[in-house]
Amino acid sequence: MPTVKLVDENTTEPRVRAVFDDIKAVRNVEHISAIWRALAANPEHLELCWAQVKAIMKPGVLDMKTKEMIAAAVSITNGCNYCINSHLAAAQKFGLDAEGMRELLAVVGLYNQFNKLVFGLQIEPDVFPKVDA
Amino acid sequence: MPTVKLVDENTTEPRVRAVFDDIKAVRNVEHISAIWRALAANPEHLELCWAQVKAIMKPGVLDMKTKEMIAAAVSITNGCNYCINSHLAAAQKFGLDAEGMRELLAVVGLYNQFNKLVFGLQIEPDVFPKVDA
Amino acid sequence: MPTVKLVDENTTEPRVRAVFDDIKAVRNVEHISAIWRALAANPEHLELCWAQVKAIMKPGVLDMKTKEMIAAAVSITNGCNYCINSHLAAAQKFGLDAEGMRELLAVVGLYNQFNKLVFGLQIEPDVFPKVDA
Amino acid sequence: MPTVKLVDENTTEPRVRAVFDDIKAVRNVEHISAIWRALAANPEHLELCWAQVKAIMKPGVLDMKTKEMIAAAVSITNGCNYCINSHLAAAQKFGLDAEGMRELLAVVGLYNQFNKLVFGLQIEPDVFPKVDA
Amino acid sequence: MPTVKLVDENTTEPRVRAVFDDIKAVRNVEHISAIWRALAANPEHLELCWAQVKAIMKPGVLDMKTKEMIAAAVSITNGCNYCINSHLAAAQKFGLDAEGMRELLAVVGLYNQFNKLVFGLQIEPDVFPKVDA
Amino acid sequence: MPTVKLVDENTTEPRVRAVFDDIKAVRNVEHISAIWRALAANPEHLELCWAQVKAIMKPGVLDMKTKEMIAAAVSITNGCNYCINSHLAAAQKFGLDAEGMRELLAVVGLYNQFNKLVFGLQIEPDVFPKVDA
Repeated sequence: MPTVKLVDENTTEPRVRAVFDDIKAVRNVEHISAIWRALAANPEHLELCWAQVKAIMKPGVLDMKTKEMIAAAVSITNGCNYCINSHLAAAQKFGLDAEGMRELLAVVGLYNQFNKLVFGLQIEPDVFPKVDA
Repeated sequence: MPTVKLVDENTTEPRVRAVFDDIKAVRNVEHISAIWRALAANPEHLELCWAQVKAIMKPGVLDMKTKEMIAAAVSITNGCNYCINSHLAAAQKFGLDAEGMRELLAVVGLYNQFNKLVFGLQIEPDVFPKVDA
Repeated sequence: MPTVKLVDENTTEPRVRAVFDDIKAVRNVEHISAIWRALAANPEHLELCWAQVKAIMKPGVLDMKTKEMIAAAVSITNGCNYCINSHLAAAQKFGLDAEGMRELLAVVGLYNQFNKLVFGLQIEPDVFPKVDA
Repeated sequence: MPTVKLVDENTTEPRVRAVFDDIKAVRNVEHISAIWRALAANPEHLELCWAQVKAIMKPGVLDMKTKEMIAAAVSITNGCNYCINSHLAAAQKFGLDAEGMRELLAVVGLYNQFNKLVFGLQIEPDVFPKVDA
Repeated sequence: MPTVKLVDENTTEPRVRAVFDDIKAVRNVEHISAIWRALAANPEHLELCWAQVKAIMKPGVLDMKTKEMIAAAVSITNGCNYCINSHLAAAQKFGLDAEGMRELLAVVGLYNQFNKLVFGLQIEPDVFPKVDA
Repeated sequence: MPTVKLVDENTTEPRVRAVFDDIKAVRNVEHISAIWRALAANPEHLELCWAQVKAIMKPGVLDMKTKEMIAAAVSITNGCNYCINSHLAAAQKFGLDAEGMRELLAVVGLYNQFNKLVFGLQIEPDVFPKVDA
């Protein structure tokens, strides 16, 4: 049961309306999902969150399928069902097939295991990413 | 300070030697990193862990760069420095550039935020991934 | 489905009865909530937990509304629905209004994001709290 | 060791410069802390993150001391040393004294315990926050 | 609602059949639980996961009751209901009684508290486990 | 660097002195470890924490070695180095040998993996622990 009242997706509150319309246009969807309707209880927070999603979740060096898979990996690690569903469905929309989804899950499971093995072993990094400008 | 003694990478213990040689061959590396040397304290566990990594971290529907990015996303979420370094460096080796690394980080940060917003809002899934055979 | 049998709130088991009566008196409530009824399966553990809550969750330098908001922030970060509800409801009882609840959620979301950005960036502290006696 | 190169705080890169100057003005600080210098490797991400912090971490229904304590509670739960230091120091700047800091820590510890007790007990919510517009 | 289709436990797919039959034999169970039926969507992953469970979850220096309690402690800390139930039921099958279950829960709760207190206090280790071959 | 000043273990502050002396007597140790010296900044909190540890970490249905292993499993899952060291060293003192320590780590790693696989698969419990009085 949500801890806030979900704002109706046909709301005429101007700040919320603007964001909802932009979500529909940018995402090419007919309905506003629950996360945005819940965040809309706080229009300024809704604007901030949507600005961030709009700027980050667009094709860049990484394509949308990859970004949605990364979002799913984070969400599975944190155990957020709403988010897992949302990002797996989005990754599928961007072309992830059933076999890819299974591989994604296998990688996520594997490194949750290794992360904790490393915690237990308390080993120090011996490899470093290249750091450039 | 590691909680176990790291096994020398020139060990002649047969089960460990076989895994270390296989790691060098499959990964085309000259040195055995600390995680394998630490796991080698338990040869059966070393074999199991390497079998799993070898089977999962090979090119499939998802390529190696993508799999290493997913591993990095998990490791950042869990806060495991050893693993973050290891997977970011590996993703770079498979072609991830500095801009891609920044996008990866932005997505990981963003959805750690959203996962927790959803926890607070307690909304229920309204989108579902396609479930096929 | 609970993994233990909830103890009836009218129980006459002496150790549990004493704690339940103290909870009703201190908290000025008519009913014993599920967490206490579940912990009551282990009367010594119930006593310890209640002693801790009673000592920590009383007005001090921090007032009760603040303490309940901190408890809610922890519970949202950990994704515990029972606890989120409990502490948000308690914070409301102590005066938190709808706008304050939205601000609380925004701060919690924001810093779950920043915590993980910092994990990914692996930066070291450059500011320190004052440490006094 | 950071995974990105920290941008010099005297940088003349225009987008970064604008954010750094705004941070100094809004926060009334002389130096730019490591988190912003690290995020500056990706100017768009820096702008988004600063916009969010600027909008959320201002006095509202909740005052700054309370917001910094909430941020500290989240950071302690996630185990992010950089963030713990940053938010405890900020809360002190806004008036949190040593006794308040101890109370904060006690509440955070207590509810990390209760969150996990509830996970183990698998009890369902019996109290709900008021949900209004 | 599962994100994958659970494979029928009477499947004749050879790789899955072999694992399911081995699970029934090794575990002495009549039915295949949901985790294996879900993992069976990816037969290679199923084989890897079962090989690991079969090798690790057998009596060793630690007996099965102890191993199942450790698994339950991990699962409670992560908040995974399916896993909590599974490992508590298994530990009971291996002899854990109601009092032992309560003690297990108390220890898990206590150290989730202390782990976070230590995060907040940022103290450094002053005791080390013995490290031998 | 600790966020509080560690209280000297020879302190004469009466409430702290009483706890420190009791720790030395009950635990049969010569020195007070950092966690207690840090908690001593808040004598009431120190008393509460020690009362809880003293009551829970005593031999019961579960012996001390088992309880320390459970504490280590929690601490590895949460990534708390101080606590990992403390509980592994304590488990060794109560008889855990090197092989047992490796088995413990293998179980902890394995079920951190399975917990997250279950999150991704979103399967519902099909086994339940027995619930008795």
